[in-house]
Amino acid sequence: MASATLFTNVRPAGKAATDVLVRGGRIVAGGQGASVGQGAPGDVAVIDGGGALMLPGLVEAHTHLDKTLYGMGWYRNAVGPRLIDKIDNERAMKRALGIDPARQSARQVALSVGHGTTHIRSHVDVDTDIGLAGIEGVMATRERYRDIVDIEIVAFPQSGMLVRPGTVELMADALRLGADVVGGLDPSGIDRDPKGHLDTVFGLAERFGKPIDIHLHEPGELGAFAVELTIERTRALGLQGRVTLSHAFCLGMPDAAAVDGLIDGLRQAGIHIMTTGPASVAAPPVKRLAAPASPSAPAMTASATTWGPYGTGDMLERAMFVGMRNNLRRDDELQLALDICTHGGAAVMALDGYGIEAGCRADFVLVEAETIAEAVAGHPPRNLVVKGGRVVARDGRALVEVP
Amino acid sequence: MASATLFTNVRPAGKAATDVLVRGGRIVAGGQGASVGQGAPGDVAVIDGGGALMLPGLVEAHTHLDKTLYGMGWYRNAVGPRLIDKIDNERAMKRALGIDPARQSARQVALSVGHGTTHIRSHVDVDTDIGLAGIEGVMATRERYRDIVDIEIVAFPQSGMLVRPGTVELMADALRLGADVVGGLDPSGIDRDPKGHLDTVFGLAERFGKPIDIHLHEPGELGAFAVELTIERTRALGLQGRVTLSHAFCLGMPDAAAVDGLIDGLRQAGIHIMTTGPASVAAPPVKRLAAPASPSAPAMTASATTWGPYGTGDMLERAMFVGMRNNLRRDDELQLALDICTHGGAAVMALDGYGIEAGCRADFVLVEAETIAEAVAGHPPRNLVVKGGRVVARDGRALVEVP
Repeated sequence: MASATLFTNVRPAGKAATDVLVRGGRIVAGGQGASVGQGAPGDVAVIDGGGALMLPGLVEAHTHLDKTLYGMGWYRNAVGPRLIDKIDNERAMKRALGIDPARQSARQVALSVGHGTTHIRSHVDVDTDIGLAGIEGVMATRERYRDIVDIEIVAFPQSGMLVRPGTVELMADALRLGADVVGGLDPSGIDRDPKGHLDTVFGLAERFGKPIDIHLHEPGELGAFAVELTIERTRALGLQGRVTLSHAFCLGMPDAAAVDGLIDGLRQAGIHIMTTGPASVAAPPVKRLAAPASPSAPAMTASATTWGPYGTGDMLERAMFVGMRNNLRRDDELQLALDICTHGGAAVMALDGYGIEAGCRADFVLVEAETIAEAVAGHPPRNLVVKGGRVVARDGRALVEVP
Repeated sequence: MASATLFTNVRPAGKAATDVLVRGGRIVAGGQGASVGQGAPGDVAVIDGGGALMLPGLVEAHTHLDKTLYGMGWYRNAVGPRLIDKIDNERAMKRALGIDPARQSARQVALSVGHGTTHIRSHVDVDTDIGLAGIEGVMATRERYRDIVDIEIVAFPQSGMLVRPGTVELMADALRLGADVVGGLDPSGIDRDPKGHLDTVFGLAERFGKPIDIHLHEPGELGAFAVELTIERTRALGLQGRVTLSHAFCLGMPDAAAVDGLIDGLRQAGIHIMTTGPASVAAPPVKRLAAPASPSAPAMTASATTWGPYGTGDMLERAMFVGMRNNLRRDDELQLALDICTHGGAAVMALDGYGIEAGCRADFVLVEAETIAEAVAGHPPRNLVVKGGRVVARDGRALVEVP
């Protein structure tokens, strides 16, 4: 095997065509510095990039690998409208349909890698029904595909924590077993005890030295209260940069002055906001969050679940949804939509060496597009996905066996 | 050429697999009634449907064929945020970029037919700069592709009508030349004269005996006033069923009681509402519009224009956008999203013999999906598109030459 690879005729971030040299899993040089001459002669493999757009590997910073129905035939959804309807239905369906966490997470990972995803943060259900089986299943997939994607696991109390005795102990077990992040969920809406819920989440984070990622669907002023409590605890415990609020619909509430106040507080506490760019509910305003510099990264539920039918596992399509939701039309605005699905997610996951500059890890994707804006608006085919310097997907398909 | 065609092993609207016999451009029979025996022996061509889902031809009931940039290289959008910025920029760009209406409309039509569209209503700009050149260009495309798609043309005063003297006369010329529908645009927002604008639009409709389709972007109470004026004129002139309001963002305003009142008035006047399912602005609530029976059909801007970068010319993707905007998740709700992009558009265009029952015109599409919900949520590949009994597209591509 060659010790280095030269990717010829690629356009990094839409700039002029160039060659990119990769050695030891890192980008050594692009542009004039990249030439076969830098490798020992005969020791450099050459791959023709065909003039494609080169983007950093896409970061799927919020998904649920354990609950996708991908590859299981169409699930006929007749679930009720409330959040708790969906939670209860899913817990029942896991058994009824046989949603195997290891098999299903493997299927979704392969789908996502085919679309250019190189890093995934997945929430995984922990509850008194399924125990740690979800965590174990996704850990098996993480191990199985360790050479093609990096996976971070959030222990996620989907059915509530305080309202279901035994869940907190299971959360601790999950973190001991291999989960990387402490999850949480609607402190008032589900656990009916915002102080108790958040104290428990932050307590687990302190005890295990882990970051936090909390699902916050609570709307308007109720959600704003949970944001305030989260800011207070993040500052008190010195967890700046290590706390994420996912969804945060309340940041889309009409009271602009109140939202500005929340955004200031979030920025000072270094709290990340994750959004799917949802079309049917209030949503965090990504342009206001991005200026001056509060990272924001999109959530992603790839492919259908018992919750809903949408999602194809494609983070460029997700960037399009974020762009459409936030009325991003100009090319510079679509650049923001891409940043959210790349560097935004990388900030949340605190990725080391992320990007397509010299010295970065060689995790990138070649896209059949003229500009970044076209890649976002049209989410055209992925020609090649590279992880750690190796080609891991071609023409939209991951080069792995899928169960 | 065979006088009849038997499409074997298709699943009409997701029902059990069957054969569908087509003769003389019409569906003769499906199910047990369809057999080769019904044609003169040897005179029936057989096409294998491969078990695909069979849907009626998709209806793109609102697009702008004259202004797509499809196939012209990526347009770097740096346009200002106001509606008038976009209108003025586009009028300038038509010359600067050379957006040829005949060529561009042909490109978009081929794209749409490849995705399963069999009927299109297109607004076409009429203004004192371009005159009737847009109308003539789209009329040329209508003639060119008359065997693969039905196209209806709306004379559309994109740059305003009363504020640009000479435009009303050009609108009349367009209707004489071959436009089918009288267009209008933001009576207060652009022409600054809601009574004058609407009286002119309805006056042209009376004079030429044509239906009406008005772009109404005006938000909240301003838009509601335009809706009221439109209802009054529709009833006074007996134009029930022949008037459409496109976009109608005001129907998404927060005051639910006011919206209910408007919807009642629209229903009594038989006015159609067209929506794109826009993610970033207030939008008409399709579930409330659909019950009991007020037709609603989605608008579609296929592929990038100088207005914005989104759109792929795929009405199943549009159905997904409508579904996501309206939080449609259950299978029965996704059926509504499809209805909007098929029968809803057919009602707006007053199509005769539309559907996939025996006796209907043989305009349909075969989709690689298990259920209607899957077709909407995943907008999977179109295997075959049939228009008037003839195969006009295969594997996503129209079987025509494209300029």
